[in-house]
Amino acid sequence: MSNAPSPTGPFSGLTRLDHVGIACRDLDASIEFYRSTYGFEVEHEEVNEEQGVREAMLRINGTDDGGATYLQLLEPTREDSPVAKFLARNGEGVHHLAFGTGDVAASAAGIGERGVRVLDSEPRTGTAGSRIVFLHPKDCGGVLTELVQSAH
Amino acid sequence: MSNAPSPTGPFSGLTRLDHVGIACRDLDASIEFYRSTYGFEVEHEEVNEEQGVREAMLRINGTDDGGATYLQLLEPTREDSPVAKFLARNGEGVHHLAFGTGDVAASAAGIGERGVRVLDSEPRTGTAGSRIVFLHPKDCGGVLTELVQSAH
Repeated sequence: MSNAPSPTGPFSGLTRLDHVGIACRDLDASIEFYRSTYGFEVEHEEVNEEQGVREAMLRINGTDDGGATYLQLLEPTREDSPVAKFLARNGEGVHHLAFGTGDVAASAAGIGERGVRVLDSEPRTGTAGSRIVFLHPKDCGGVLTELVQSAH
Repeated sequence: MSNAPSPTGPFSGLTRLDHVGIACRDLDASIEFYRSTYGFEVEHEEVNEEQGVREAMLRINGTDDGGATYLQLLEPTREDSPVAKFLARNGEGVHHLAFGTGDVAASAAGIGERGVRVLDSEPRTGTAGSRIVFLHPKDCGGVLTELVQSAH
């Protein structure tokens, strides 16, 4: 990040589209689809037991805030997880959008003051040690929206 | 684009997440939400009669292929448009993902050879004079996927 430009973001502190979360039933098959069809490669995989997902991050491009934009493929690890419920209701597809910020707590506080319900009172741990909060989709035009601060 | 770096993309020729298309019932209200909540500003607005949408492009960040990533807000202009049908079935939310390429015809041909149905036999006109094709969501893990080549 040290050599990256530091553009001034908008007042919310959001400086990039960090990732698009995509719910899938079979993570390995989804990874193979994105690799063989488009050439997108996995940069990171992990299991998040709290959220009940196995996930893979596929890097699409770098961004001018020194970060990058990813697809995040999400397979549920248990039937009571949010992603499992999403799949039962909607089938496979886009699950959420995540915007990157340098200070997730400050961004969440500012956005909360504008009338959007922040679903996490304290940031919790997201992919690769990031800190994240989710916003209520009913306050965001039907889009489940995440704010994410990278660990590095 | 002339001063931008030209990273080598994957074999598909896709070098960025160009935009996320979001279906909304009231474009002006949606623009105001994204402006007042996050500080994202409209860079471009137009009506696409062929697709039956009024749309606005909100720039989120620049990308390392010399392009940018946008949110594309889409309001239907007639009830038989694809976006109107999407809203009737799903309500407001994410409608499609679009990946940027320098040669949409070549990318579509290569992706089509990998077994994905390309819904447009010839690229058609997208936002701001871009050339676009759509891929069948059933071949793309439930994600309606667009390929886009910028006009400039």
